[in-house]
Amino acid sequence: MANQALFADFYEFTMLRAYFELKLTQTATFSLYVRKLPKPRNFLLACGLSDLLDDIEALRFGEEEIERLRSQGEFGEPFLQWLRGFRFRGDIVAMREGTPFFDEEPILEVTASLPEAQLIETLVLNQIGSQTIFASKAARVVAAAKGRPVSDFGARRAQGIDAAIRGARAFFIAGVTSTSNVASGLIYGLPLEGTMAHSFIEACDTERAAFENFLEIFPHATLLVDTYDTLAGVENVIAVAKSKGAGLALRAIRLDSGDLAALSRRARRMLDDAGLSHVAIVASGGLDERAIERLLEDGAPIDAFGVGSDMAVSADAPTLDIAYKLTEYAGEPRMKLSSGKRSLPGQKQVFRQFEDGVAVRDIIALRGENVEGQALLRPVMLAGRRVESEKVSLVQSRNYAGESTAALPEECRGLSASSSRYPVAISRKLAQLEEETRGRLLHR
Amino acid sequence: MANQALFADFYEFTMLRAYFELKLTQTATFSLYVRKLPKPRNFLLACGLSDLLDDIEALRFGEEEIERLRSQGEFGEPFLQWLRGFRFRGDIVAMREGTPFFDEEPILEVTASLPEAQLIETLVLNQIGSQTIFASKAARVVAAAKGRPVSDFGARRAQGIDAAIRGARAFFIAGVTSTSNVASGLIYGLPLEGTMAHSFIEACDTERAAFENFLEIFPHATLLVDTYDTLAGVENVIAVAKSKGAGLALRAIRLDSGDLAALSRRARRMLDDAGLSHVAIVASGGLDERAIERLLEDGAPIDAFGVGSDMAVSADAPTLDIAYKLTEYAGEPRMKLSSGKRSLPGQKQVFRQFEDGVAVRDIIALRGENVEGQALLRPVMLAGRRVESEKVSLVQSRNYAGESTAALPEECRGLSASSSRYPVAISRKLAQLEEETRGRLLHR
Repeated sequence: MANQALFADFYEFTMLRAYFELKLTQTATFSLYVRKLPKPRNFLLACGLSDLLDDIEALRFGEEEIERLRSQGEFGEPFLQWLRGFRFRGDIVAMREGTPFFDEEPILEVTASLPEAQLIETLVLNQIGSQTIFASKAARVVAAAKGRPVSDFGARRAQGIDAAIRGARAFFIAGVTSTSNVASGLIYGLPLEGTMAHSFIEACDTERAAFENFLEIFPHATLLVDTYDTLAGVENVIAVAKSKGAGLALRAIRLDSGDLAALSRRARRMLDDAGLSHVAIVASGGLDERAIERLLEDGAPIDAFGVGSDMAVSADAPTLDIAYKLTEYAGEPRMKLSSGKRSLPGQKQVFRQFEDGVAVRDIIALRGENVEGQALLRPVMLAGRRVESEKVSLVQSRNYAGESTAALPEECRGLSASSSRYPVAISRKLAQLEEETRGRLLHR
Repeated sequence: MANQALFADFYEFTMLRAYFELKLTQTATFSLYVRKLPKPRNFLLACGLSDLLDDIEALRFGEEEIERLRSQGEFGEPFLQWLRGFRFRGDIVAMREGTPFFDEEPILEVTASLPEAQLIETLVLNQIGSQTIFASKAARVVAAAKGRPVSDFGARRAQGIDAAIRGARAFFIAGVTSTSNVASGLIYGLPLEGTMAHSFIEACDTERAAFENFLEIFPHATLLVDTYDTLAGVENVIAVAKSKGAGLALRAIRLDSGDLAALSRRARRMLDDAGLSHVAIVASGGLDERAIERLLEDGAPIDAFGVGSDMAVSADAPTLDIAYKLTEYAGEPRMKLSSGKRSLPGQKQVFRQFEDGVAVRDIIALRGENVEGQALLRPVMLAGRRVESEKVSLVQSRNYAGESTAALPEECRGLSASSSRYPVAISRKLAQLEEETRGRLLHR
């Protein structure tokens, strides 16, 4: 795990120097929330916490970081000396990975000395923001596939290496079955999946020879059939399966272009007629949740999907209006009043209320309040150390995501924009604190 | 620079094992190109080459990588032993970073033994793809700003850490002036820029005290004025500038919310009336090239822009239909025939032709062909080593991007979709080779 001490915006360091010189080092609380859900999302799925907490625990300024900062010319030795001793020693509460959440709900709150809480701003926003974007998109793809396995093929189209590696992790939490991404699979222990590329077929003398060669080495392979002509490719698969007695082990064929609904129907019939009913059909190539929904509505006999670009970058909602804002300093509530960008003061908690097992509303309240419902923010770091009991496996996070998404109202879970927003209320005490704080800020 | 040997799709490794066992190790050429430009782009800007070449030079399988692969269970010892000796020893030609390019044009071609050329597929697509997405978006933002400085504020909204760090680099090549991203700035030597956050203002007793405190430490600061009320914030700036005699050094104010056109006009008048005409106005907050264009058309007196989310993820075109395809193996041209996904066979070159200094058409030709115009693909790696004379500074790439973009036809450079596509033709010899190859593949 790399040291991310320098992964910060320059203003964190100028502010840190100012906090250091002005002795503004009392306890601060910052709140992380999404101001407004992207239009094509009825809910978001919180993700990225575990990696973030590891990075925060490991944060320090070694010789390399200090030297780089010194070279920048803006920071004197007393400040750099102070950075050498810098550790994050604060507390963090957060929603579990895999928790669905909504507009303005704090998904994480940091309470630490002001410089510590400030320095991690960019890292928190970037890491929770991006993994939440990825998981929230993947949840839709998984829903569209209606129980059929979805494999992440996005490594090549992701926006950089970190996005690809952490993306595969987030997709898995959201219910994706496997990934093609070797680095991510081996780091996180995710199921790896791979078929073959067109280049393999093209490098062999004929498509049929390519299939024969590949099956000798990988008898359970998935064969890619669209390099030259999809249906001729299926015929080649059948011929090889029969001649080599390889049919029994053969797992699947993959369609990667053309009219996937029509081709899958034709291929299914050809395979069935050849006694290869156990051979599955995998579809890939420019798929997203809408395309998958249409294919299945159309009755396409597709057994599994490989999804790349659109899921890899969350193409219809590639960014989140996510903010990390000071809400308390030195025991006093704080907030912005900027137009259209309000922030809720104080240390908060989110309560989810259920009726007959279905989530019916969330209440954003002050942390000490006694409100009915499930408290979604849990202590995950105390005095700079991760809380052991909150370290969960990816499979546990994945199961939790599945259960808590299933508990959302039906209109939330659909792919289309829900006509009614999921109800999120603010507790009377929080509303009162907001009013008081606003008044105090306007009249001083 | 990390070792990216495992940043590959699983099928690269299954294919590599098959190539190894089948002795398919003759020389292959793969071509990298974008099938079709995203609708909102009239051109793309090639970017990411230098980092990619460093990664390829450094690629090897050490004990850690071998152990991880072994644990996966699919690979035997002879293959793993062979991977230990794996190096990329091939040749690469590529367009210079900062070269504008169009649909189907090869921007990079790899010629190496088949396994070497295959293994780097995912890395090449991911790295050139993402930096090209970033640079192509930033070129539009820079064009919209019409010479005013643009600062990258996107680290917090980028899709992961790699995207943020390499993004800042790509933005700089495309003409962005500075970045807020400390890690990227220090790694690549980019100009760093930072102002202050709302949290700093909120942590101080009053906004005015915050400005005073900050200016004592950073006399040339840019002060953020919208925490509570933008125009009251400007009044506080003026009061502090006068009372403290700090006005002369003060560099700028930053508007981050509200009606930026109206607020900038009011703020400009207030500053001018107070004798602070030298204090610049920086605008940020949800900006993209369209918003900047509208602000300037509206006559907003804004001197510089900070751009985050939309540039950070290239929100209107977050993905590219980029492909890396085998085009020659063992001296014989190869291609796919998949519907809608043709690939051009052979080793190629792209020639750009100019009239009166304006680019008028590109010709995709075979590499040996004698075609008029500027040859855009240059040898950048030979036998696995970077070509020294092709190592250029970021400033050189930035200048080259500026010059070659300025040489595009005017309709290409505008923000709106050009009514006529930039002309890209295929040479007669390449068309002939495509025809022959297709015929050979269909009739065998």
